[in-house]
Amino acid sequence: MSKIVPVVLCGGSGTRLWPRSRKAKPKPFLPLIGERTMFEATLGRCGDIEQFAPPVIVTGTAHLEHVEEQSKSAPGGTVIVEPEAKNTAAAIALAAGRLSADAVMLVCPSDHHIADEAAFRAAAAAAARLATQDWLVAFGITATAPETGYGYIRRGEPLEGGYRVERFVEKPDLATARAFLADGGYSWNGGIFAFRAGYFLAELAKHRSGLAQAAAASVSGGSEDGHRFYPDAAAFATIEPESVDYAVMEETDRAAMVQASMGWSDIGNWAALRDATDSDHDGNSVRGRAELVDCSGVFVDTDGPRVSVIGLRDVAIVVDGDEVLVTTMEGAQKVGKLGGAAKQ
Amino acid sequence: MSKIVPVVLCGGSGTRLWPRSRKAKPKPFLPLIGERTMFEATLGRCGDIEQFAPPVIVTGTAHLEHVEEQSKSAPGGTVIVEPEAKNTAAAIALAAGRLSADAVMLVCPSDHHIADEAAFRAAAAAAARLATQDWLVAFGITATAPETGYGYIRRGEPLEGGYRVERFVEKPDLATARAFLADGGYSWNGGIFAFRAGYFLAELAKHRSGLAQAAAASVSGGSEDGHRFYPDAAAFATIEPESVDYAVMEETDRAAMVQASMGWSDIGNWAALRDATDSDHDGNSVRGRAELVDCSGVFVDTDGPRVSVIGLRDVAIVVDGDEVLVTTMEGAQKVGKLGGAAKQ
Repeated sequence: MSKIVPVVLCGGSGTRLWPRSRKAKPKPFLPLIGERTMFEATLGRCGDIEQFAPPVIVTGTAHLEHVEEQSKSAPGGTVIVEPEAKNTAAAIALAAGRLSADAVMLVCPSDHHIADEAAFRAAAAAAARLATQDWLVAFGITATAPETGYGYIRRGEPLEGGYRVERFVEKPDLATARAFLADGGYSWNGGIFAFRAGYFLAELAKHRSGLAQAAAASVSGGSEDGHRFYPDAAAFATIEPESVDYAVMEETDRAAMVQASMGWSDIGNWAALRDATDSDHDGNSVRGRAELVDCSGVFVDTDGPRVSVIGLRDVAIVVDGDEVLVTTMEGAQKVGKLGGAAKQ
Repeated sequence: MSKIVPVVLCGGSGTRLWPRSRKAKPKPFLPLIGERTMFEATLGRCGDIEQFAPPVIVTGTAHLEHVEEQSKSAPGGTVIVEPEAKNTAAAIALAAGRLSADAVMLVCPSDHHIADEAAFRAAAAAAARLATQDWLVAFGITATAPETGYGYIRRGEPLEGGYRVERFVEKPDLATARAFLADGGYSWNGGIFAFRAGYFLAELAKHRSGLAQAAAASVSGGSEDGHRFYPDAAAFATIEPESVDYAVMEETDRAAMVQASMGWSDIGNWAALRDATDSDHDGNSVRGRAELVDCSGVFVDTDGPRVSVIGLRDVAIVVDGDEVLVTTMEGAQKVGKLGGAAKQ
């Protein structure tokens, strides 16, 4: 089997990890866990040259500098520079249009954490095998909590190394999420997909012909500049933004999934980051200078000032330049609505 | 009656309001409540020239600059510059030694908050009247909570405008403090005293003759420099540090008290400051840039960075230069033991 082509999506201007994540430097480009940024870690996971070809990175001009700076360790990679953000269906279509029809692409968001890289590579290999058989393959992340913030995938009949997808389920309410977890037949949709490039484009053309044509025109009218590729801006501008989930995965009859149990987190807020970070025996995690007294489950991330904390439980404290955030873990989901996060 | 001479004591290197209070700029010199510093507020309370003479300020060289800068609004005042800190008995003895024997001095710590200045002035007048009759008069602060951090005064037989002191009580445990509060005959010892200078020195000589002689020698051997007075350092160095409570008040047969209900707080920690500060309808108090969401009883004091807080209750957050403190109100009493506070 030929090597898998990682297609790494670098977009977004998330506010949920504000103030560390800012519009000018969002989540993928921050070293939130360990020494590497989440983008670097994504490239690193796909860095085994026995299994993976050099990556195709899809990003916007706003983040091109970060991408170039942080992808030096992925030689041979190419960068597709989107003129504007048009959601994932368009981004993947651009990458697919630049690859040979038989290339197997592995679509990877660049702002997720995966603790178990061996499990990731095994799932990628299984997904790639199904993709060569013209399945559109989603990673079904083994659900470990009744999360209401994720979409779910209902497993269907077994395939070799995976399953048919019976159906995709929108973000559920808590009671439904609990029922899914108890059922055992539901996984989280982690936004990681394996496709044969030609088959993806064929299915896209079948279900979203306008999007497929505009993406194809963007590629054919585009221009190369070294390792960068600039799609045709006029053609790209006509695209109606849509996620690959809606545009293709929920439409196709050929949706499959591989089960992936790999310590995955989308690090959707500071509480999720706390949970994904190594902690001491009191459950405290500290990055930067801090002193914690009588604390448990406290997360501190400071870019300079010392943070001294007394008596708190399950609180995140983030110091970033001229912003200080102090939030309960329950409150972490409201961070994006803070004035500072909204008006940055 | 002649005017009362305020004797304002400016010492200490408190750590309980760290990081705002630092060794180089302790509590008296900070605008913790309102626009004035606590020292300025202390002078202001004694600023009515009908009732008060210009102040005598006792401080150390370390704080002389702050004292000079912040006492410009108290014209005619003098400053006694202690060569070293020797606790309150010595500081008061220096001031008494510089005054005429019949002067009535009102000893005022400079790091207490008093919300009701009219009540303070009324109590000062009552205390001064008793002092002219050679009572050593303490302010008995009306107890409003079973505080274990204060000394208490047991009220005795009535005097004109006050009471004899039956006894002084060390900081009690919580059960004892509750019993005191229920009893009604106990007040907090606020460290505010009225003495006739000559009588204070006579009682000091009676109970601590060595201290009295050394203080007298410090005054007679000292030197004036404009409005400043420098005691003789060699004589002063021989003094055994002791509080006026131990050295005189608990020894004398002439201890009296006036009852003072004046919104007093020694602002002994961030919780006390929160309680003494105006708050909104959720009990939140903010100084500086902050946004509070789903918070109650939260106190924020920031010298620059914006502080965003979600979901917290009864927490103090203080940002001061390169230090950030986050503490529960219960934990506030431990602030002084933090590494940052201890090693400043």
